[in-house]
Amino acid sequence: MGRRMTDPPISWLMSLALARPQVISLAAGFTDNPSLPVERSRELLKSLFSDKQHAQSALQYGTTPGNPELRRFTAERVQFLDKNQGPAALYDPARVVMTHGSQQLLYLLTECLCDEGDIVLVEDPTYFVYLGIANSRGLRCRAIRMEPDGLNLEHLREVLETLEKAGELPRVKMLYLVSYHQNPSGITTSFEKKSKALELLKRFERAAGHPIYLLEDAAYRELGFGGGNEASALVAKHGDRVLYAGTYSKPFATGTRVGFGFLPEPVLTCVLHAKTNHDFGTSNFLQVLLCRALKGSDYTAHIDELHKRYEHKARVMLNAMLHHFPEGVDWIEPKGGLYFWARMPKNVSTSLHSKLFKAALEAEVLYVPGDLCYAEDPSRRKPDNEMRLSFGGASEENIREGIKRLGNVMKKHLSNKKS
Amino acid sequence: MGRRMTDPPISWLMSLALARPQVISLAAGFTDNPSLPVERSRELLKSLFSDKQHAQSALQYGTTPGNPELRRFTAERVQFLDKNQGPAALYDPARVVMTHGSQQLLYLLTECLCDEGDIVLVEDPTYFVYLGIANSRGLRCRAIRMEPDGLNLEHLREVLETLEKAGELPRVKMLYLVSYHQNPSGITTSFEKKSKALELLKRFERAAGHPIYLLEDAAYRELGFGGGNEASALVAKHGDRVLYAGTYSKPFATGTRVGFGFLPEPVLTCVLHAKTNHDFGTSNFLQVLLCRALKGSDYTAHIDELHKRYEHKARVMLNAMLHHFPEGVDWIEPKGGLYFWARMPKNVSTSLHSKLFKAALEAEVLYVPGDLCYAEDPSRRKPDNEMRLSFGGASEENIREGIKRLGNVMKKHLSNKKS
Repeated sequence: MGRRMTDPPISWLMSLALARPQVISLAAGFTDNPSLPVERSRELLKSLFSDKQHAQSALQYGTTPGNPELRRFTAERVQFLDKNQGPAALYDPARVVMTHGSQQLLYLLTECLCDEGDIVLVEDPTYFVYLGIANSRGLRCRAIRMEPDGLNLEHLREVLETLEKAGELPRVKMLYLVSYHQNPSGITTSFEKKSKALELLKRFERAAGHPIYLLEDAAYRELGFGGGNEASALVAKHGDRVLYAGTYSKPFATGTRVGFGFLPEPVLTCVLHAKTNHDFGTSNFLQVLLCRALKGSDYTAHIDELHKRYEHKARVMLNAMLHHFPEGVDWIEPKGGLYFWARMPKNVSTSLHSKLFKAALEAEVLYVPGDLCYAEDPSRRKPDNEMRLSFGGASEENIREGIKRLGNVMKKHLSNKKS
Repeated sequence: MGRRMTDPPISWLMSLALARPQVISLAAGFTDNPSLPVERSRELLKSLFSDKQHAQSALQYGTTPGNPELRRFTAERVQFLDKNQGPAALYDPARVVMTHGSQQLLYLLTECLCDEGDIVLVEDPTYFVYLGIANSRGLRCRAIRMEPDGLNLEHLREVLETLEKAGELPRVKMLYLVSYHQNPSGITTSFEKKSKALELLKRFERAAGHPIYLLEDAAYRELGFGGGNEASALVAKHGDRVLYAGTYSKPFATGTRVGFGFLPEPVLTCVLHAKTNHDFGTSNFLQVLLCRALKGSDYTAHIDELHKRYEHKARVMLNAMLHHFPEGVDWIEPKGGLYFWARMPKNVSTSLHSKLFKAALEAEVLYVPGDLCYAEDPSRRKPDNEMRLSFGGASEENIREGIKRLGNVMKKHLSNKKS
């Protein structure tokens, strides 16, 4: 038992934050408390419970694939976000499955597609909880380098060729891509890059002997505040090889765990069977609440407010970093999501056991050490000089104070290094 | 992919019922729609949303083990149901984990404890979705015969001895027991029997080389309407080897998926790690709603009403069976839960491909074929002359009409057999 179930470092970080409430956590991926849709939810629920029959049916079991109305709204929503570019058939609600957060879908897909010892290609860095999934299922990860606009395609090709030469291609099952405002780096992969990555995967399919899927994790898609022209999802053009994972939890309310997938066959059927075993279906009550938010203007109005709030909080963090962080520390400025990704000089470790982390903890501020976001990949040394800083959960005051404390710790540490 | 992900027959039954709404389904394990707590939930939510801070925190992420207040209430509730018989330390809220329905806990426990090829002991018959879990994870099941008061202990001993002789004991990881108003048979296992079963398992631990756990699935514990003196859970006396699975979904509202476990170490830690990967934690919003129901009198008052309703519906089904079922058909009369377990003469198959099932479908009535509830166990022929009949979801009128239709089909079929 527990052979691959080592204590996730993030659990340790969370219990640390809980045990010492005076610590300012810039680590947690929480959403902004004051932004949570209290009034909207109250009115939506009031309206739901004013109709006894509707309320009863919300309090009853649903089906495993999910609430039919919500699956339809979801299909329409993604089609809208994709600016109706793809063929309508790809946005068939029958291709949609609702899950208990998009995290569950990531797990179910990995369970369906991968056997122990299989290989998943991931971004370098990537979403660390996904690394936990891969690890718990005995998978190997191969890391693909990142550029400011996403995957380094040349490196992706190299890795695939190396795997082919080593006879390992039959073990490669998918490429996992956090395509919008990536957790942790904030990078968004352009539509063009996603398409080219998929073409590359397809070129190696014959040698692999099976489809190599591209899992597009769009969890932060609706949290873009850059105002730019957002990329379409890859599902818009490649329905048969793209597994699209989306969520309502982060944009609407994290306390309601409702995620979804757009999946091709035979993956869809496999995921539904696995979900029958896992939990028989996502809470129907939560799905009905989301349905009602999407039906009127509540969902989109809430998102507009959210964008303004996060844009502001990101600016607060940016200004604090500009003011307090010493020279030699740089970062990627996000256009969405919840995180800054900051980089220390190469010789400064930010890891859980580093002097910097301990000093930060003494100064009562927490961050996510960057090395937790890097897969175990024997082909490169794991960078350990970065950190993920979240402006999601902390108040503006705490963002300012937390960055100030962190800046002071950095300054001391960097000047010590020189001495 | 999907190698062990064959289409669950229950999905097929459900889609059949959805596709032909005129069919009366006595198959689905749905709860009674009119009994769902609409007024109570409305008031609980109204009160929650009248306090902005409380509402915000309900709409925010929780932690992986679950809402601290709900874990405390859960510990107190189980201790109360156990009549405070066990040592207080066993009811420590720190031993509680909240899950997305108790189904999820069954999955997580199986994932944590069992490797491919391992053996799980199950009741004969047992909860068919658990067989789906075992199957999807490549486990083997060995079936233990049932008596009116639960497991046949003599048979349990025989099976363990046979496994020991075959050198298979190291593969035996647990005994899965649906201990109250079992799905499908309605049988409740006495506390004495549960204790003796556990003692037996312990006797074989040395030869196994590891703990053999007893997973007590108490999903129907709060649905007892017999008015009898309900058995305590085994957790009351044996905290270190008993994995207790409970739920609020069935007794409160099936649309809110909140289950829980009482677990000993090291299983608890393993389950928490697995849950981090699966979904990071159960919807905090649902947990807060349940908290509020448990805090006041809503939960217990609702359960009292529920018991009256189900007792009545069970009597409606019983009377209809007495009136319409031909001689040669008998059944177990439940004192709780949602099901009658009816038995045809041995030479009459009730399976999905049987003449009887097809005739029932033509007469527009559905049941769960009994053979679906029997594990694949090479040591005995699978009985296929039983059926699970649910009085949960169907209205009284439909129960009467459904049983009448089924009785007519049986009569025709049994007289044909004779001719």
